Amino acid sequence: MSVTAPRGFRAAGVTAGLKPSGRPDLALVVNDGPEHVAAGVFTSNRVVAAPVLWSRAAVGDGVAHAVVLNSGGANACTGPEGFADAHRTAEHVAAALAVSAGDVLVCSTGLIGERLDLPALLAGVDAAAAALAPDGGPAAATAIMTTDTVPKEVLVERGAWRVGGMAKGAGMLAPGLATMLCVLTTDAVVTAEDADAALRAATAVTFDRVDSDGCMSTNDTVVLLASGASGARVGAAELTEALTEACAALARALVADAEGASHDIAVTVRGATSEAAAVAVARAVTRSNLFKAAVFGNDPNWGRVLSAVGTVPVDVAPFDADAVDVAINGVLVCRAGGVGEDRALVDLAVAREVRVDVDLHAGDAAATVWTNDLTHDYVHENSAYST
Amino acid sequence: MSVTAPRGFRAAGVTAGLKPSGRPDLALVVNDGPEHVAAGVFTSNRVVAAPVLWSRAAVGDGVAHAVVLNSGGANACTGPEGFADAHRTAEHVAAALAVSAGDVLVCSTGLIGERLDLPALLAGVDAAAAALAPDGGPAAATAIMTTDTVPKEVLVERGAWRVGGMAKGAGMLAPGLATMLCVLTTDAVVTAEDADAALRAATAVTFDRVDSDGCMSTNDTVVLLASGASGARVGAAELTEALTEACAALARALVADAEGASHDIAVTVRGATSEAAAVAVARAVTRSNLFKAAVFGNDPNWGRVLSAVGTVPVDVAPFDADAVDVAINGVLVCRAGGVGEDRALVDLAVAREVRVDVDLHAGDAAATVWTNDLTHDYVHENSAYST
Repeated sequence: MSVTAPRGFRAAGVTAGLKPSGRPDLALVVNDGPEHVAAGVFTSNRVVAAPVLWSRAAVGDGVAHAVVLNSGGANACTGPEGFADAHRTAEHVAAALAVSAGDVLVCSTGLIGERLDLPALLAGVDAAAAALAPDGGPAAATAIMTTDTVPKEVLVERGAWRVGGMAKGAGMLAPGLATMLCVLTTDAVVTAEDADAALRAATAVTFDRVDSDGCMSTNDTVVLLASGASGARVGAAELTEALTEACAALARALVADAEGASHDIAVTVRGATSEAAAVAVARAVTRSNLFKAAVFGNDPNWGRVLSAVGTVPVDVAPFDADAVDVAINGVLVCRAGGVGEDRALVDLAVAREVRVDVDLHAGDAAATVWTNDLTHDYVHENSAYST
Repeated sequence: MSVTAPRGFRAAGVTAGLKPSGRPDLALVVNDGPEHVAAGVFTSNRVVAAPVLWSRAAVGDGVAHAVVLNSGGANACTGPEGFADAHRTAEHVAAALAVSAGDVLVCSTGLIGERLDLPALLAGVDAAAAALAPDGGPAAATAIMTTDTVPKEVLVERGAWRVGGMAKGAGMLAPGLATMLCVLTTDAVVTAEDADAALRAATAVTFDRVDSDGCMSTNDTVVLLASGASGARVGAAELTEALTEACAALARALVADAEGASHDIAVTVRGATSEAAAVAVARAVTRSNLFKAAVFGNDPNWGRVLSAVGTVPVDVAPFDADAVDVAINGVLVCRAGGVGEDRALVDLAVAREVRVDVDLHAGDAAATVWTNDLTHDYVHENSAYST
């Protein structure tokens, strides 16, 4: 149930002193091989943190030996000095592990616009390298938490081989990617090409479909390390399936732990002319502050769903507004763009999970996007906490 | 300072009983001529309320004698029956004024997805028709309020002629249009063509640049009535200028009264390659819940500005992320994509208005978009109040 569950990996999580709270803030994940295949996907924000610039380049050759991750500072908007800090971090890890700096990936999360305390971070790297253990996954998962209330880990078993994973992320969750750091490991024998294709396919339908607050981060990173230690050769399709299962579980865990949320909301759009159209309509609903505030108040306000659906341009999603059905938790509150069942039949207070089903009656495609309700606690956490 | 300030207009505001609170909820504005030129702009939402469908068609010929407006119900997502209700309302007003129903515009605001209490509304029309007065503007402005805490009125003087106006809107404020009802009146002599062009030009740079909560309504309507009673012939350019001044004042009043807001935020983007690019970047910032929550906490969190700026696609707004400057209330907290002046120099607690200036250093175009902070009270009002 962690990044060290597959064979060939060690990990550690330590306290470097980057967080004022004194909680663990530095994680190291090492691939002991025999293979060192790696792939990564990164934020599509044009403002990217220094560690993203570094790691995007470093993973370009499909090889990595280790990932170092810190919470307590994003190293974003820190200029050339921030990039030098990321580089020095990689060099330091490389020296400790006797590998090349170009094979060390770096991830950071925390406040934007401040330099990292590099001496503290490098001392933390030394402590983490000394603490590396085949059962160190849970400690690593704990060290990457920021406003997360629980560590997020996953294990997908495939008989001869496994996929393990850990993720952090509780706010600034938006598509491309949902903002977060995630490390996936596998002991399958895979090619770098297959690893890259499978990781992109898996994240596109999982992390990319979580939109907690519509805010895209500068630091999003999902990394896959493959050790080949199981000896089991796996193709792209098989790997994609396992990675998708792992990413879906982690994405669901991110939603469940989103800052201040009291409801998780799954918006499923059916009857669209294309999957892209379904995603666009679902995203319009997941971005509606009015609807999300209504869900917080346990108000099945389908008018706010419909008015969000109506903002999607016709060239993006062709449909007839007078044909749209909306069901909330299975009750068809809006039929053909008008009043349906009594909204009083919907009880949102009964469960954390809310299901919104929109049928456009325009085609056969469907997609689901996850979000959270908009709560007092979201406002509180994001006005009081500088991230 | 109201829709009855220009010559040739009468208005009234009465209590029809549509609002549970018992406050005024029905307004009538009548153009007594000698001319009856009219223009209208409406929501770009594909889900449009019945009164929008009616009024869009009715104003198509550039002529209108009256506008009837109700709060206490949006008459949206009410199907063919809702359209029949809007039609009957227009017929009833027309009979009371001895004009054609096709020359009566209808506007509604309130809860989506419920039929109006038509007998109450029609009795209210009779009461309003009986109460029409040349100084009835303020009563009309009060009757269209929903969660507004103050009526919004404007008067623009141009010597021989005037523009008066009233607006309502406090939530669901987003572009195309900022969600609201607005009636503008003028005693200028104008052609229908000029009225239409001037109204579109004026709203495009005012109401369309208010984005309080990113949520676009189903009922947005801005109507212009021109009586010609001043005898002063006015061209498109002159009219556009006066309407822009009136709309800007009303748009600013909407922002100042936005649901639960404690700060008004003017996001100005300069150095863009085009005005459209500047607007796109400004909108990305005004839509960031994280930044808006930070402003509520009086935290000048420029990292959240920059990460929002970075979400705009490069084909929409070409710029170099490493060149972007951000000033908050005049303090250059971010210089060239990195740390600038000390953020502690920015005191957001001192005033309601917050100025965010983004310089892309990519061109000469600029634009400003207004929004509000994201507060506990916004969440409260929109979870407790079904609109």
